[in-house]
Amino acid sequence: MHNEQHDLDLFFLGPKSEQRQFLEEVLKLVLNDHVFWRRNYYPKDPPAIPYRKVHGEQARHFREEFYTELFQLISELKLDVPVFSPRYAAHMISETNLPSLVSYFATLLYNPNNVSSEASPVTIRYELQVGQQFARLFGFDAERSFGHLTSGGTVANYESLWYTMAGRTLPVSIAMAGGEGTGARDAGVRDAGVRSADGLWALMNVPLPEVEERLATYLAPDPEARYNALRPHLQSQLGLVGFARTVETYFDAEWKPPVLVAPRTAHYSWARALPLLGLGKSSVRTVAVDNTFRMVPGDFERVLRACQAEQRPVWQTVAVAGTTEFGTIDPVGALADIRDRLSAEGLYTPIHVDAAYGGYFATMYRDGEEAPVGVAAVGAAADGAAPGSAGEPTDAPPGGDTAEAYRALHRADSVTVDPHKAGYTPYGAGSIIIKHGFLKDLVAETAPYCLDRHDTTEAESPRPQLGKFILEGSKPGAAAASVWFSHKLIPLNMDGYGRQLATLCRLTRDVDARVAELGAEGAAADAAAAALAPRMVSLYRPQLNLLCLLAVPPSAAASGAVLQGGDASGAVPPSAASPRNLKLSRVNALNEALAERFGVREVMSIQSYDYLVSRTTVASDMAAIEACEELAHVERDAPAVTVLRLVFMNRWFEGLNEHGESYRENFLSVLCAEAARLWESL
Amino acid sequence: MHNEQHDLDLFFLGPKSEQRQFLEEVLKLVLNDHVFWRRNYYPKDPPAIPYRKVHGEQARHFREEFYTELFQLISELKLDVPVFSPRYAAHMISETNLPSLVSYFATLLYNPNNVSSEASPVTIRYELQVGQQFARLFGFDAERSFGHLTSGGTVANYESLWYTMAGRTLPVSIAMAGGEGTGARDAGVRDAGVRSADGLWALMNVPLPEVEERLATYLAPDPEARYNALRPHLQSQLGLVGFARTVETYFDAEWKPPVLVAPRTAHYSWARALPLLGLGKSSVRTVAVDNTFRMVPGDFERVLRACQAEQRPVWQTVAVAGTTEFGTIDPVGALADIRDRLSAEGLYTPIHVDAAYGGYFATMYRDGEEAPVGVAAVGAAADGAAPGSAGEPTDAPPGGDTAEAYRALHRADSVTVDPHKAGYTPYGAGSIIIKHGFLKDLVAETAPYCLDRHDTTEAESPRPQLGKFILEGSKPGAAAASVWFSHKLIPLNMDGYGRQLATLCRLTRDVDARVAELGAEGAAADAAAAALAPRMVSLYRPQLNLLCLLAVPPSAAASGAVLQGGDASGAVPPSAASPRNLKLSRVNALNEALAERFGVREVMSIQSYDYLVSRTTVASDMAAIEACEELAHVERDAPAVTVLRLVFMNRWFEGLNEHGESYRENFLSVLCAEAARLWESL
Repeated sequence: MHNEQHDLDLFFLGPKSEQRQFLEEVLKLVLNDHVFWRRNYYPKDPPAIPYRKVHGEQARHFREEFYTELFQLISELKLDVPVFSPRYAAHMISETNLPSLVSYFATLLYNPNNVSSEASPVTIRYELQVGQQFARLFGFDAERSFGHLTSGGTVANYESLWYTMAGRTLPVSIAMAGGEGTGARDAGVRDAGVRSADGLWALMNVPLPEVEERLATYLAPDPEARYNALRPHLQSQLGLVGFARTVETYFDAEWKPPVLVAPRTAHYSWARALPLLGLGKSSVRTVAVDNTFRMVPGDFERVLRACQAEQRPVWQTVAVAGTTEFGTIDPVGALADIRDRLSAEGLYTPIHVDAAYGGYFATMYRDGEEAPVGVAAVGAAADGAAPGSAGEPTDAPPGGDTAEAYRALHRADSVTVDPHKAGYTPYGAGSIIIKHGFLKDLVAETAPYCLDRHDTTEAESPRPQLGKFILEGSKPGAAAASVWFSHKLIPLNMDGYGRQLATLCRLTRDVDARVAELGAEGAAADAAAAALAPRMVSLYRPQLNLLCLLAVPPSAAASGAVLQGGDASGAVPPSAASPRNLKLSRVNALNEALAERFGVREVMSIQSYDYLVSRTTVASDMAAIEACEELAHVERDAPAVTVLRLVFMNRWFEGLNEHGESYRENFLSVLCAEAARLWESL
Repeated sequence: MHNEQHDLDLFFLGPKSEQRQFLEEVLKLVLNDHVFWRRNYYPKDPPAIPYRKVHGEQARHFREEFYTELFQLISELKLDVPVFSPRYAAHMISETNLPSLVSYFATLLYNPNNVSSEASPVTIRYELQVGQQFARLFGFDAERSFGHLTSGGTVANYESLWYTMAGRTLPVSIAMAGGEGTGARDAGVRDAGVRSADGLWALMNVPLPEVEERLATYLAPDPEARYNALRPHLQSQLGLVGFARTVETYFDAEWKPPVLVAPRTAHYSWARALPLLGLGKSSVRTVAVDNTFRMVPGDFERVLRACQAEQRPVWQTVAVAGTTEFGTIDPVGALADIRDRLSAEGLYTPIHVDAAYGGYFATMYRDGEEAPVGVAAVGAAADGAAPGSAGEPTDAPPGGDTAEAYRALHRADSVTVDPHKAGYTPYGAGSIIIKHGFLKDLVAETAPYCLDRHDTTEAESPRPQLGKFILEGSKPGAAAASVWFSHKLIPLNMDGYGRQLATLCRLTRDVDARVAELGAEGAAADAAAAALAPRMVSLYRPQLNLLCLLAVPPSAAASGAVLQGGDASGAVPPSAASPRNLKLSRVNALNEALAERFGVREVMSIQSYDYLVSRTTVASDMAAIEACEELAHVERDAPAVTVLRLVFMNRWFEGLNEHGESYRENFLSVLCAEAARLWESL
């Protein structure tokens, strides 16, 4: 199955530090290159630290104490979890790739600050180029969109809402400014009916591309004067309360605070974004998810229609490409269809895709344009019979709903994607890409000491600026170089990341299939033991590299039905009824014990971990739990179900251990055996 | 003056890479230590990347392309500005110290994520310990306060307001919850007059320590039920608009949106914080600054009294310790006095000190408790006649207003401080310390998959959590290790950072004094030339390591008066009147030309830079400009004055160049000569 000419193995240090000679050699080069760069700046300037000091008694003391403390630090670091190992399948973390590690280190020596080109003439360009790369990856117009790096996806999500809110209220502000005699009437932005609840509703539902046009039309006659007239009417000036009051007075209508529409599976950063931005948690409208944890389009439409009926505008809709807990992907295309239809009926919402987790998986659906380092070019393998330079197979990316959702990404209005997740780069590297780049200008601030001279974010402009358009201030140029250099060596297509991620998706599907087989066969030595042992069950068919497993005790699982196979929708099929003598709290106790057994614990040495997985809890009233046949007759005495969460970032999970057994098979044996042992002791 | 036994020279790589052997040796150790750690995890697991692959044909291609791209990257990085050099005095940036560089790299190899202890069992503790170290540095109770790292000071500033807003509205929410029959009446939080504008005002002015008590009293009878009753009344649930409306209904009084009080010199992140948090830029009340760019206490009182008269509550007051543009420090003690007095009169405001820039300078006022590496311990040198182990002088920290402001820091309610500025650590490392740690619990969110099991941020708890209490999500453990290890080797007192920063303050005062002397002597060869040459003028007496210089053309400066010396308040004394034939735009043209000459430009090589400084603009109506005698008779035809901004992070600025001349003297000569040349050509 695996063609080693086509993998990215050499791009990692490896679980046994297989690439250590190369890494050491490269780091030494990078260090010397920097060291001698310093020495060549005004070569005749004498050393600042005299030779006698660098080599004298004081230096001896210095080194002694430095080493003493350093040994303590590096010994403590060794208690960190072995994320580099194929034995680790707990969170969306792994070793970083070598290009990102080496370039991070190289740039750390220079320590540029990507707030402005004055503090980082080089790496700020890298950052803006990465923004354009992502824009192209998602099918946005790289020239009209705007993308940049953040410290992480959480800040990127805040930014999406911050940009959107600045744009959505603009038509109302323009109308109010026009009402105060700035002549906006000429610009056609007002009409007789505008000062009414209906007028307000229409202005709060102007699509963002049209907002840009309206702003241009409004400003055209005299940009400076017009903007000065507009400014006092902006929400950013008035604040939410002041804006609401001003609007109510002007339109003689109630201001109904807009809402955020998001699925139940949205990342917790959204629950924080609302109070942070002054919106309140109660202003979220939640869309139901199906038994595969994906947004139900019909329910999305229902929510939008309810908003329309109540005349509550929608700031934006959040869809998720790679839910953090399940790795599932909302049906972006179907959601965009509904958005477009409702938009024609007067309710508009931009769609933000939170692809912090899943964004890089879009590379699976892009043909290679250039051969990655040391790897012959191959085409995308969407048909499943992948081509290869030597005629060997490359893993095909997931098809069906997954492929469809990724191909519809271009219909979103903004996307969050985290290089420090599936990009295999160091923390903290998130990013936000907005399709309507003009929104950045609406939030711009200036700091006279470094930002006032240049007004562009063009990557190719002489002095690109960034700080005025983003939430953060000073930020590491090293993170930008790290992502940029990764993309340079590992392209954002099937020649690069796509290949690795497609392999991980296939690997995850294989694990899922093996779990199903084990469920049928039983992991125990004989039938009698099997009847007493818990059985592992997948909660849904995985879409990406994440799988949720549940150990079902024998009294529930002994019905012998196979809880695997899935129908076309990915849901778990019905099977024979299970006994009624089991409580959910007991099932949870088993899975919690397993999670503890395979989780991060207080350890004296990482040797205590044979395999690592994470856990999550799923509310009992979620469709996947309600539809879970194996739990159908379990007494629901707990509000949530604990499940094991497995994330595969390391393709060597299907490699072989010292006994020639794959880690995958060994892990599943150990898991089943531990489940049996723990169940017995409960 | 300088005692080389007492400096931190060895803690830096140095402008000529003087410490390169040590750095290389240490990095190699760190790398090998990690590499062999990996190899010792399940030693019998076979290599994942086979030997033939690591050393085969594919690897040859891989290396070839890796090196090709890497050479391009590291050659581009060489266009970065030479911040390591004593010739660089532009921004608050320098080379990082060696402990932070080495520990960042060491931790990068492990790449922990400080969102939770499950993803970073080691470095999350470091982060919380750093929070406690800063708390102690500023005189807070380390147990009751809460401090953590952020990606930078901008996010830390947002957080300060986010935490504060969660606490300030709580008494109102409790009252409203009590009004709905949860029995809060028993807890004494309501009385007959509470449902009135006066009652609302009183509830919006409960000091934060008392808010904590009220919450405890309210929750005591049945925390879960009480909190459930309270939740719907929280601003975080209702949003700003919903809260305002609910309050108006309940109290039958107008909701007057609270304001933020800040000086005119506040960092631009505050102008962004307001719209971000839904407050609107118009909700800032600006306090005037004097001719040394420090908040005028009397004006602070005037602003507070105006808020009281209008019944506008104050979310918080921002004071600045180290303004980004001038390095000046607001009189924290005097402001706290006024706050306390007004608080007794019914208007309360917490004080947030934005010490992103100046926080580390507090170490100058702390006696050493332990000897730093290779350096004998000395006491603080506040009396100016500094003790030293060998009887040699250590630079005394600034006294007077500066010392007073730092000694009053403990009266603040929260502080922002950026290790990536005066802590000499890599970007991005900011931090926020809040005195009232309970506020963190008010903003807490949970993510079931990693945050729901433990509920504490105690650094010593078995599994400290962080993600639920902060704005950011995933974040680099390497940044935490970097700051923690810096503090380990360079203590936060006069044995460590204090010593270095006191030297920089003294160095800056010396530069200021030399500029004054040059102003009198003239830098030109003879009196005739001097009469035609512009003169350099300091805009104010520096408090920390930042100086603003202005080149004043001869027609304004030829009066011969000395624009230096300063009175007790630091203001510039009056001198004889200058000719009236000069326009401000001409003065600006000269200074802009100088800023261009000594600024970051498009260069082919950094050899093009002899010295680097930055610039800023100061509005013409600011006191320092209005009081500037040298500009008194300059025609004010521009709204702002361009000045050169010099930040000294490198003590070797007073070292000697190849000709035995100090960089300082050489720079001042070059600066004066260039000013003369540019003036002639204008």
